[in-house]
Amino acid sequence: MKYSKFFGKTIKDTPKDASLASHKLLYQAGFIRESTAGRYYFLPLGMRVMQKVQQIIKEEMDAAGAQEMVTPVLHPLGLWQETNRDKASGFGLIKVKDRRDNDFVLGGTAEEMLVDVVRKFQISYKDLPFNVYQFSQKFRDELRARGGLLRLREFIMKDAYSFHADEKDFIKEYENMRDTYSRIYERLGLDTIIVAADNGDIGGEYAHEFQVICDAGEDTIFYVPSKDLYFNKEIAPTQAPPFDQKGEKQLPMKEVKGEGIIGVEALAKFLKIPVEVTTKTILFETEKGEVIAAALRGEYDIDETKLKRVVGCQSLLLITPEKIKELTGANVGYAGILNLPKEVRVFMDDSMEGRVNFEMGANKTNYHSINVNFGRDLPLPEKFYDFKETKPGDIYPETGETYEVFRGVEVGNIFQLGYHYSKKMKDATFIDQDGQPKPYYMGCYGIGLARTLATVVEKHHDDRGITWPKAIAPFAVHLISIKDTNAADEVYKKLQKAGIEVLYDDREDVSAGQKFADADLIGIPVRLVVSPKTGTQIEWKERSVKETELLSFAEVVARLNK
Amino acid sequence: MKYSKFFGKTIKDTPKDASLASHKLLYQAGFIRESTAGRYYFLPLGMRVMQKVQQIIKEEMDAAGAQEMVTPVLHPLGLWQETNRDKASGFGLIKVKDRRDNDFVLGGTAEEMLVDVVRKFQISYKDLPFNVYQFSQKFRDELRARGGLLRLREFIMKDAYSFHADEKDFIKEYENMRDTYSRIYERLGLDTIIVAADNGDIGGEYAHEFQVICDAGEDTIFYVPSKDLYFNKEIAPTQAPPFDQKGEKQLPMKEVKGEGIIGVEALAKFLKIPVEVTTKTILFETEKGEVIAAALRGEYDIDETKLKRVVGCQSLLLITPEKIKELTGANVGYAGILNLPKEVRVFMDDSMEGRVNFEMGANKTNYHSINVNFGRDLPLPEKFYDFKETKPGDIYPETGETYEVFRGVEVGNIFQLGYHYSKKMKDATFIDQDGQPKPYYMGCYGIGLARTLATVVEKHHDDRGITWPKAIAPFAVHLISIKDTNAADEVYKKLQKAGIEVLYDDREDVSAGQKFADADLIGIPVRLVVSPKTGTQIEWKERSVKETELLSFAEVVARLNK
Repeated sequence: MKYSKFFGKTIKDTPKDASLASHKLLYQAGFIRESTAGRYYFLPLGMRVMQKVQQIIKEEMDAAGAQEMVTPVLHPLGLWQETNRDKASGFGLIKVKDRRDNDFVLGGTAEEMLVDVVRKFQISYKDLPFNVYQFSQKFRDELRARGGLLRLREFIMKDAYSFHADEKDFIKEYENMRDTYSRIYERLGLDTIIVAADNGDIGGEYAHEFQVICDAGEDTIFYVPSKDLYFNKEIAPTQAPPFDQKGEKQLPMKEVKGEGIIGVEALAKFLKIPVEVTTKTILFETEKGEVIAAALRGEYDIDETKLKRVVGCQSLLLITPEKIKELTGANVGYAGILNLPKEVRVFMDDSMEGRVNFEMGANKTNYHSINVNFGRDLPLPEKFYDFKETKPGDIYPETGETYEVFRGVEVGNIFQLGYHYSKKMKDATFIDQDGQPKPYYMGCYGIGLARTLATVVEKHHDDRGITWPKAIAPFAVHLISIKDTNAADEVYKKLQKAGIEVLYDDREDVSAGQKFADADLIGIPVRLVVSPKTGTQIEWKERSVKETELLSFAEVVARLNK
Repeated sequence: MKYSKFFGKTIKDTPKDASLASHKLLYQAGFIRESTAGRYYFLPLGMRVMQKVQQIIKEEMDAAGAQEMVTPVLHPLGLWQETNRDKASGFGLIKVKDRRDNDFVLGGTAEEMLVDVVRKFQISYKDLPFNVYQFSQKFRDELRARGGLLRLREFIMKDAYSFHADEKDFIKEYENMRDTYSRIYERLGLDTIIVAADNGDIGGEYAHEFQVICDAGEDTIFYVPSKDLYFNKEIAPTQAPPFDQKGEKQLPMKEVKGEGIIGVEALAKFLKIPVEVTTKTILFETEKGEVIAAALRGEYDIDETKLKRVVGCQSLLLITPEKIKELTGANVGYAGILNLPKEVRVFMDDSMEGRVNFEMGANKTNYHSINVNFGRDLPLPEKFYDFKETKPGDIYPETGETYEVFRGVEVGNIFQLGYHYSKKMKDATFIDQDGQPKPYYMGCYGIGLARTLATVVEKHHDDRGITWPKAIAPFAVHLISIKDTNAADEVYKKLQKAGIEVLYDDREDVSAGQKFADADLIGIPVRLVVSPKTGTQIEWKERSVKETELLSFAEVVARLNK
């Protein structure tokens, strides 16, 4: 491809909001342009990389025995209603009505669609297992789209769904997919770690994410070195580091007036106590209308994913100020678990365990109780739970060691779905050996292509531009003509004839320096220069090394085909 | 791929509404399933064919110098408003709102998007020409979706857009694309004809469709043998065959009462005159509010595409019964062009020319004028036009020969866009040699993949199933085991090792007869059988011939690689 007529040339500027290297470089080098926030054009350079990423995923999925197919982009709303996922918040589902008043959603993931197409067939145990996958446009109406490709509102996802007679058979496929994913990321030039994670709105009991450790990542990963275990923050079991109060004697509880003092930091300062002595109490309502109070040591926040599991509910909504007043008698900011009405179920985080003389909201506007003690002022609960947001410095409870903490980008995930869909959806069954219909056991497996591509750039760049791994570089070589255009034209034609993907910078009015800078920015692994100085030879330079070499055409081709 | 675990097996039933061979066969053979009307799942077999169709299109587009990219599926509504296409009726645009109240449409075609991304760059004359294309999901909210893949509401379209400094340069690319399309369809096994067509809601001045002559088609094509010219019905210039009234003397005009007689057929019967003597007069309002009357010989209908060009307007709406009454003084059904108010512009079709003693609505409820004559009752217009719907039997005006008429499926189209978009959209310019910004000259080029695939099936099937052309068959061979599964397993592995795409029917509880029937239905070009009877050899049978042969494995591979 000749660069003179190439659509999407390099520019010097970067987008105003660009903070990530991948965003800046993919923009400057001409791989992408934003349409609206979170929705991108892939220009010819970006398209070529996307296709290579897709091809690698396809090859590995096919080799693993999966079968490619595709569903429509508009999913009938009715299918999402069958599983109640039309109300799940995580997807930011966009609803669409056609002119015959039929309701659709723009799919964020396709479990219901796959069950829908599979149940159109009479599946027997002999047909199982199978794993079907697609590359298709997915939509998530994210409240905040980050600049660049790391968090999009519209993106190509490879999503696979496997169908099994039972869990045992599923586990084989889960391991097969885990190994397949490891091969895929290795080929893409990404070191991944496998992180235990929450299923979110997908359903099912367990899930793993493939994460790339990377400062640009949005996820926090907690690592247990002695076990070589990774947890996503939202499910990392944790123990607060102890706050030493040993030997402290119980002091008399009293109420202190602290008018308008809201928040544990301000309160600790006002009361002249460490923040660890304060208590956070939050009241929620579940989807069934039950009110719960969750209390934990002041420096912690609540991890709602964990708390939902502890409570055994689907959703938690903060209760309204009016309801707080009604239940506690106080305005917002002064809630505690002392003297709450009996209908409020109380949960205490294990950071509460073993405390003496702690502070707590007095359930009285402007008042805080201090020197609260278990046994005397507050009954010791039957059980303490872990529903705090894990923080750096926290301890992995099983071994007692302090977590190592990383930032990560989630580039893929594998989910156990079990019977989550097949039991909710009608006729989602296979005929077993005994002639009876039984729900199938399912798994699902996703990879976001654009985010994966951006992560490759986060990990493979330097101060001059991108340094693409060979397997997904947009072209194999970047040929540059300097003055002697005829000789370079010849080399271009010969390279094409040899089946080599070549981007040829044939521009006549652009300086050599500009062409070199563009080549570094675009990041094709090999740069070739033909100029009056190179004679009948060709200058060879790899993107990642400084030295150049003079090679014959035959040597160039031999090296490229190596 | 083993058929025992293949998802999407054959079934005997056909969909209730299936009338087209492609619909029935693609369903029975397990290539597709309907999600909702006009939206289809492509099962693994269908996906493989789609990918081969896509790959052929891609190879030819790349060879022609076009550059692949991709736009988001959700187009900002504002872009469609820039060109007023948000109001165009042809696409059945579906509008979408996200939760931040941003408006989008589900794109039916992507001219505005491409101009939008191109204008993000400062394009110079040196960057031109270029042609960028994409394969992407398109949406048209068709009022009626036909069963099967011939008319979908959601489909993958290859759409290409070329940008030029001037018309002369564009014409080169138009010819390049026309030749590229011919190569594509030839590789796909389709004989196409190139048909002059209307641009519809795309804009621009001229367009050609690639049509496959086929009874399942929705289009009517008119052919001029002496010129080897094809016209789509909507723009075929036409002359009504003469209705001989020579020598007839003018009779006195009079009004005849025909209460409640509506429609030319009923009227002709009532008046005991040939339908050719009746006149149809229709009143429309243009987008500017102007009322026009169009009159033509009774047996013809109005071709609104032609009439819009004649009138020089964008849209024509039938006027309301109230307005008809106000203008003509009569109820609907009795309009004529006698004594219309002056503000009504009158257009007469050339089928009116040379008539004597014809009938016409009297603009008086229940009354018809008969023996109307030009010159005496009605002034002879300055000009007659051609705005009638072309019919079989009609004459091509230039040569006077009668058209040949075919049914066709439009599988692709090429459009001249000219400055239609670049003049309407802001900053859609390039910097010319003189340093001045100028609008670019554009063309666009579309292929609907699913419709093309279905057309291949319409043309390539017999009473037992599909007969895929080799280039797009889902697999190269269909291997069948009969009893001797071990020997067939061996052949399967060896074929895979030899890089041959093989569908292996390894089912143990299915009869040979059923397997043969399935192979014929699915339609892979070569069937191989391994059974106790074939010994160390393999039975070879081509889908389109009856004879079988016994070959060695090496011979099988040699033939397949031929």
